[in-house]
Amino acid sequence: MYHIKVIIKRRDVILDPQGKAIEQGAKLLGFDNITHVRVDKLIEFNINSESPEKANEEANLLCNKLLANPIMEDFELSVTKI
Amino acid sequence: MYHIKVIIKRRDVILDPQGKAIEQGAKLLGFDNITHVRVDKLIEFNINSESPEKANEEANLLCNKLLANPIMEDFELSVTKI
Repeated sequence: MYHIKVIIKRRDVILDPQGKAIEQGAKLLGFDNITHVRVDKLIEFNINSESPEKANEEANLLCNKLLANPIMEDFELSVTKI
Repeated sequence: MYHIKVIIKRRDVILDPQGKAIEQGAKLLGFDNITHVRVDKLIEFNINSESPEKANEEANLLCNKLLANPIMEDFELSVTKI
């Protein structure tokens, strides 16, 4: 069994509306020194595979098929034995 | 200027509907070996403060006031000089 951690980030050139909303909200609360807010996703799951290579490969496939949007997002994943 | 990275996680006892949806979606795609999916938030921003301690303190305050829901989420943050 392996634990997978995937960070899915919108590409830098693509506007992040949620980040912009947080920046504005922060300003309204008096935090004037906060900039460049980006909101990304961290997805964790367990995968039952024979080897770390197989786990990595399957997790990669799942990211490409379901978790990440290949048009505007990039992802990086890490595998740990549990 | 400091770069702040905040990971906001739903407490383990609280159901994560987005994670459940991914688990079901994965099953439909033929990934039967994926369990315990959790979807968390990773928020990054820059903060203009005099010291790392001050940056940490302000980022903590912002998390408590705006970014995290203290009823069902926990957060951890890291500060890096940029």
